[in-house]
Amino acid sequence: MNYKLMGRFIARIILIEAIFLIPALFISVGYGETSAIYGFLLTISILIALGIPMAALCRKADHRFGVREGMICVSMSWLVMSLLGALPFFFSKAIPNYIDAFFETASGFSTTGASILSDVESLPKGLLYWRSFTHWVGGMGVLVFTLAFSSGENGTGFTMHLLRAESPGPDVGKLVPKMKQTAKILYIIYIVRTVVNIILLLFGGLSLLDSLCLGFGTAGTGGFGIKNDSFASYSPYIQDVTTVFMLLFGINFSCYFLILIGQFKSVFKDEELRFYIGLAVASTLLIGWNTFEASFNGDFGEALRHAAFQVAAFMSSTGYSTVDFNAWHSFSKGILLLLMFVGASAGSTGGGFKCARVLILFKNLRRNIRQVLNPRKVMTIRSGGRVMDETVVTNTNAYLAAYVTVLIVTFLAISIDGFGMEKNFSVALSCLNNIGPAMNALGPVAHFGDYSDFSTALLGVVMLVGRLEIFPFLILLSRSAWRRK
Amino acid sequence: MNYKLMGRFIARIILIEAIFLIPALFISVGYGETSAIYGFLLTISILIALGIPMAALCRKADHRFGVREGMICVSMSWLVMSLLGALPFFFSKAIPNYIDAFFETASGFSTTGASILSDVESLPKGLLYWRSFTHWVGGMGVLVFTLAFSSGENGTGFTMHLLRAESPGPDVGKLVPKMKQTAKILYIIYIVRTVVNIILLLFGGLSLLDSLCLGFGTAGTGGFGIKNDSFASYSPYIQDVTTVFMLLFGINFSCYFLILIGQFKSVFKDEELRFYIGLAVASTLLIGWNTFEASFNGDFGEALRHAAFQVAAFMSSTGYSTVDFNAWHSFSKGILLLLMFVGASAGSTGGGFKCARVLILFKNLRRNIRQVLNPRKVMTIRSGGRVMDETVVTNTNAYLAAYVTVLIVTFLAISIDGFGMEKNFSVALSCLNNIGPAMNALGPVAHFGDYSDFSTALLGVVMLVGRLEIFPFLILLSRSAWRRK
Repeated sequence: MNYKLMGRFIARIILIEAIFLIPALFISVGYGETSAIYGFLLTISILIALGIPMAALCRKADHRFGVREGMICVSMSWLVMSLLGALPFFFSKAIPNYIDAFFETASGFSTTGASILSDVESLPKGLLYWRSFTHWVGGMGVLVFTLAFSSGENGTGFTMHLLRAESPGPDVGKLVPKMKQTAKILYIIYIVRTVVNIILLLFGGLSLLDSLCLGFGTAGTGGFGIKNDSFASYSPYIQDVTTVFMLLFGINFSCYFLILIGQFKSVFKDEELRFYIGLAVASTLLIGWNTFEASFNGDFGEALRHAAFQVAAFMSSTGYSTVDFNAWHSFSKGILLLLMFVGASAGSTGGGFKCARVLILFKNLRRNIRQVLNPRKVMTIRSGGRVMDETVVTNTNAYLAAYVTVLIVTFLAISIDGFGMEKNFSVALSCLNNIGPAMNALGPVAHFGDYSDFSTALLGVVMLVGRLEIFPFLILLSRSAWRRK
Repeated sequence: MNYKLMGRFIARIILIEAIFLIPALFISVGYGETSAIYGFLLTISILIALGIPMAALCRKADHRFGVREGMICVSMSWLVMSLLGALPFFFSKAIPNYIDAFFETASGFSTTGASILSDVESLPKGLLYWRSFTHWVGGMGVLVFTLAFSSGENGTGFTMHLLRAESPGPDVGKLVPKMKQTAKILYIIYIVRTVVNIILLLFGGLSLLDSLCLGFGTAGTGGFGIKNDSFASYSPYIQDVTTVFMLLFGINFSCYFLILIGQFKSVFKDEELRFYIGLAVASTLLIGWNTFEASFNGDFGEALRHAAFQVAAFMSSTGYSTVDFNAWHSFSKGILLLLMFVGASAGSTGGGFKCARVLILFKNLRRNIRQVLNPRKVMTIRSGGRVMDETVVTNTNAYLAAYVTVLIVTFLAISIDGFGMEKNFSVALSCLNNIGPAMNALGPVAHFGDYSDFSTALLGVVMLVGRLEIFPFLILLSRSAWRRK
């Protein structure tokens, strides 16, 4: 195990986190929020005091770096980021319980958007900004960021292993031959879309700070709101802009790259994109039909608008809300629960099981049925006209098993607190899939404050596990990963 | 497609069903239940009027018979059995709605034990007997019965395909080289254990009819009770005997065969058996610990006794109950929900996903993690010291996908009726896994009468789908199964 290179990486991430905290500090200075200023300054000092000696200690590292190191490096650095990023909340006494602060930060970096706060509006502005900014960082992945915008570490194996561990989806698409270049292109696409979204929000009459916070939350498909009622009190314009951008950020980034280089045909033919859009449209229509009489006084247009917002929020795993969907008919709630599970596209900032994986499972099932009927024929699975690598199929199957296991263990563990089963199940599903809100007792403006410290800490970790798609964390638990070769 | 041979088979099953109805008719005659006598006589006449001409028409069938025919034959004959077996309930007006009667009979043959009746005790004795007897027939499978105790149709391929489609579990174990012989041995083991159970119940002071009904329900891991409170009012002796026998009927039948031929060592080494017993013991202890203070006035022994009964009832998918487990702590209810999913052992009469499949998923997951760390190494999965066929692993993965899909579709479809999500989810899970009772609004003495006709019919089919482990029904829906070669 190449501990030194891993150490150097984690040190670099700690220092980058310190830099990320500076804008938040300035905002608190601007608003004269003393407790928050104290919290930020103390945290930044601690990060520097940790990061610089650590970087110095791990300076001389060789470049041997395999999958094991990549996986462990990624899971460790996300844990460290969340544990340290929680300090401003704790030091400023905005969240007096450290475990709650860790939950809030893990929820931010994992782009979940579940909150333990019942009154968000009373939070200092600097902390509000920091909270939303963690979404933006978590959306694309901080390691990808490090890779894209740093010199050194150009070894393809090295960057490939890190990117593979941090990127969502069953398969890592290389856009261009060099991974570093790919990471840079992805980040630029990400930044441009975020800026466009923020400008459109400014047109809607929001303040700069509000636009930034909501824009970060949408881009990272996070879902932290800055109002206690999430998006319910915003104008239809703001709501509709957000619907569109939530959906856009749930699409595989490589589609944007293909558009950039003019390959429109490949985008239209993309099976996952078709499935994603088809599911979104079908769910919106079904929910609109199911709710317009009982919940929208027979106004079908308004029902469709809110259905689209909620569908986009759940599919992209953002988790904003414009209405109290808990009051909806259970058929509509059932569809939302299904969308929580399916989630966004692979290679997007969204969470969930991912559309691409669902497609692979269906194709594998269809092949299996045909195989039973024709036992002697060798059958392949095709995607976009090409034969799919069997490893991807095997990995997807293993992922489903890992996913169900983590879901069940989390569900059982938090059941000890004694809340209802519907609540516990949807909380476990919501955290693992990085959605945010949950059904039943936990309304659309979900706050998780009533769970015990044990459950809160566990759910915090589960959110990170979900964001990194389980395997980097499972490997932490695997004996063979730590065994010396 | 060899329609003639399939027709001959279904005709034979219709006639066998007519014979099965005769004891029930005699019981009704004995008790002087006129409406039930009328129902049985009319049904038997219809079955004969259908079966004899059909058998005559399909007399000259050749013996070409493949997987397709096997699968379709099995799913069709279970549907026909349930549709026709429902007639006595309908004709006697005991269940005036035919869809409800179909649900009740499908619940019987699939060994689910879910009932639409709120007052079981008012049912005529003959119908009560018929209802429980369907469990006993459904437990081992009526085609296996036909194979074991009929002359003719000795072609190994033929019997193998039928047995494979009807037997639960990822792999069909041949006990002896000839399948027909295997089927006979299985049935004899089944009959002997049922008789022992019934004798023990007679010792407990139950009447012969009650012992027969409860014995059939336990043997088939069905769960139809004959009292409105299921097992709550029986003596601890009766309850404990039933706990033991429910667990015994959830064990792979090949274990009993191995004991019969003296291979005790292989039984002790059986991984699935260890997993099954381990899970049962762990669940009992956890539930006992979790409930003894709140639900049993601090009596740990009594808590363990009832925990063991409920654990055995859920794991074996029988679904009897001695207490109202809905009043239990949600951790205990969560464990029961998990046991509903895991289910019994492969090759038993029990339902659920099956312990053997869970083991395969875990082993595959572990291999996958190791494979990520050592991409170049070829790794196999072992079971009981031998390398497992990769087809079994692939099929198990496809089964999980099919299982989750059926579960979600059922859950969404019955959501239209507007009941709560916890109820809908546990009802879908309960029917697919052939358990019977469900959580929340549906108590331990589950009656499903409040669902709409559409949902009731759908749930009836889903129970059969679950009993035959999905694939025979999926193949009915597959175009390539009906295509001429």
